[in-house]
Amino acid sequence: MSLSELVEAGVVTLDRRTRDGAAADRSGWPGAGAPRAVARPRHIEEVQRLMAWASATATPVITRGAGSGLAGAASGTAEALVLDLSRMDRIVQIDADEQLARVEPGVITADLDRAAAEHGLMYAPDPASVGISTIGGNIATNAGGLRGAKYGVTRDHVLALDVVLADGTVIHVGHDTIKGVTGYDLVGLFTGSEGTLGVVVGATLRLLPRPARTATAAVFFADVATAARAVTAITRSGARPAVLEILDGATLGAIDDAEGTRLRELGDAFLLVQTDGYGAEEELTVIREAVGALATSFDVATDAADADRLLFARRQALPALEAIGRPLIEDIAVPRTRLAEAVERISAIAAEEDVPVFVFGHAGDGNLHPILVTEPAPAGAPIPPRAQIVADRIFALALELGGTITAEHGVGRLKREWAARELGPDVHALQTRIRSLFDPDGILNPASSL
Amino acid sequence: MSLSELVEAGVVTLDRRTRDGAAADRSGWPGAGAPRAVARPRHIEEVQRLMAWASATATPVITRGAGSGLAGAASGTAEALVLDLSRMDRIVQIDADEQLARVEPGVITADLDRAAAEHGLMYAPDPASVGISTIGGNIATNAGGLRGAKYGVTRDHVLALDVVLADGTVIHVGHDTIKGVTGYDLVGLFTGSEGTLGVVVGATLRLLPRPARTATAAVFFADVATAARAVTAITRSGARPAVLEILDGATLGAIDDAEGTRLRELGDAFLLVQTDGYGAEEELTVIREAVGALATSFDVATDAADADRLLFARRQALPALEAIGRPLIEDIAVPRTRLAEAVERISAIAAEEDVPVFVFGHAGDGNLHPILVTEPAPAGAPIPPRAQIVADRIFALALELGGTITAEHGVGRLKREWAARELGPDVHALQTRIRSLFDPDGILNPASSL
Repeated sequence: MSLSELVEAGVVTLDRRTRDGAAADRSGWPGAGAPRAVARPRHIEEVQRLMAWASATATPVITRGAGSGLAGAASGTAEALVLDLSRMDRIVQIDADEQLARVEPGVITADLDRAAAEHGLMYAPDPASVGISTIGGNIATNAGGLRGAKYGVTRDHVLALDVVLADGTVIHVGHDTIKGVTGYDLVGLFTGSEGTLGVVVGATLRLLPRPARTATAAVFFADVATAARAVTAITRSGARPAVLEILDGATLGAIDDAEGTRLRELGDAFLLVQTDGYGAEEELTVIREAVGALATSFDVATDAADADRLLFARRQALPALEAIGRPLIEDIAVPRTRLAEAVERISAIAAEEDVPVFVFGHAGDGNLHPILVTEPAPAGAPIPPRAQIVADRIFALALELGGTITAEHGVGRLKREWAARELGPDVHALQTRIRSLFDPDGILNPASSL
Repeated sequence: MSLSELVEAGVVTLDRRTRDGAAADRSGWPGAGAPRAVARPRHIEEVQRLMAWASATATPVITRGAGSGLAGAASGTAEALVLDLSRMDRIVQIDADEQLARVEPGVITADLDRAAAEHGLMYAPDPASVGISTIGGNIATNAGGLRGAKYGVTRDHVLALDVVLADGTVIHVGHDTIKGVTGYDLVGLFTGSEGTLGVVVGATLRLLPRPARTATAAVFFADVATAARAVTAITRSGARPAVLEILDGATLGAIDDAEGTRLRELGDAFLLVQTDGYGAEEELTVIREAVGALATSFDVATDAADADRLLFARRQALPALEAIGRPLIEDIAVPRTRLAEAVERISAIAAEEDVPVFVFGHAGDGNLHPILVTEPAPAGAPIPPRAQIVADRIFALALELGGTITAEHGVGRLKREWAARELGPDVHALQTRIRSLFDPDGILNPASSL
């Protein structure tokens, strides 16, 4: 089937606006021009046909969901076909007794969680972008989220995948049971592979009982160093919070400006703590005792609406920064005991290079999102050199502290050089050979990942 | 370096008794004769030297820990070098603030958990063989265990690995932070690969806070079908037990005979339920309400010693059967809602073929261990044909019910044909190509796994 036949069949569009829309994601990366075409298939068979065509014509294929990625992995490039899976958005099944869901990749993450809630269940992974991101994108990046401290990342909740390979064949990998060790872990290999090993067209996901109760607290500190010490104190307390988010004073100020709140008056660093389960209240009390002496205030949410307001404030961090200028979103992780040092040194780098940097993140995972905010710029404008210097220095810092350059957003186009540095030549070479095994002609998202 | 030089250096032994000891595991598989030699290295450099020698001489290498495997994956064969890692048994570090441990592969699983307990932490995976199995063996098989219902399997607790590849090079894969998505998930690929992709010589493992409290109950039912209905009722209740073990009446009888207990008087099926965390007692009450009407008795352990006795009884299931005859241990998983059907049909198969089959397992995971007990036989005796027929019928049943032929023990030598059937030709071929990428000369445990 030729491209024009695919267009005639309604599977592919050459519409300029659609193509322009597929050229960028939310990373701040200017992109590399509108892709050649955009496919919006509705069925696995259409994806197979598209991949067969791409294979035959050696056309690069960039798979895309909501375009909410933060590393440029789903941004179209001039010669590529963008494979937009957002129309494959059916929740095929929620099986309450097996506690699993079968979904197409275009399902919005929050929609799945809402559907699970009707059965008393939850889909645990909840990236901050949960309201706009797709399950397919979450799988492509092995997305984390606010509940990661207790519930882990996307990989921990994927049981099985349907994948269309580069040549158009479709395979089913993983197990439909909770456990299973037949064969190598291909589900793990595909999860986080950023569309470079195959196209995920279906997923069997694990659901968990929705916690009976949650208990939430807003805890303020005089500075980030003290908040980081509180994280270690919580770790030592034996509690296992479901949510343990850190926000620095600058981020609090930005939220205040955007939302009309007065968070920053309460302290220059903030931990949002949520425990869950039958012992949620007692567990929060344990945390209160552990951090009490360090905090300037410790306010327990009085009801669910109050707790939701706190979580909403956290989720507004990025939109609040987007209102100020052009955010470049970084995503390092460091050993949890190095959090204070990481934040202090990021502040020093920001001051030295004179680029405003706001820091928040998932403290329970040691995962920080330093956000560099530069002048507002039109779409497609290059990243200012000073911002790139700050980003590079933050990556180098993460590696120096024994951490990683990307905890949950992925490598994409933006961090390939740093990924190679983090992996080292031997592992990078091995990974590249695995990639070639799945994609011998190099058509799957060739400019991303490794 | 030649084999005789390796012997002179004290790294390899040709001692007949040692070689005989490395010819079998605990699967009941008769083995294929004493291996050519047994290496017992103490350092990574020795493993590298051994692998370089094996590579140069095209000698098959079978990596082995405690030999407690149940699928024949660590059993020596006549032409092979057995690489026994049990002397590399140091717990290198327990970092309480980072909640991780760095260990060598020969560490006994229970020893790690005990060492973690001194810091208020636990190593969550606990295969029934926890007192004798090694961490390296657990990683090789992606071992599960009693706490899997809540805490998952070995894979969920491995952060990073040091691996010696077939040619003797050593690589470090994974992340030392809780999260990290740089590169493909090679930790997942090595975990469960049964020594076919490389030799795991070091691991960074995740530790969790030891639960503040546990609550344990012994629940008896008139029959297995009712116990299986109780499992679904627990699933629906919203509770998330840490342990949810099922034992059938025949297994209870065997434990009674071996231990002098009187379990079978209380019912013909048994669920061992344990909840943990700050809400442990309330969560057990929720379970009691969910299953109360189905159970013949529901006894809550009065103290820790009482709870330990219950867990001990469960762990004695296999030793009790080993006292009766020669056990062949199967390891299927089925969707949890098919548990009753699975147990009933296994009983029917056992009756038709006239082979005693005892069933117990991890009901929370849908993981059943049907144990075929045949006449006592000397080491090396072949598996009786009738037992093989029963095993084959059980594997076919697992696949028919949408399950897997191995949930946590691995494929080893015993289930290769069935693994290929479960995976299907496309995925099997892909897996085989991954294997060849890591081991082009086919020297790593060539008779096992895929």
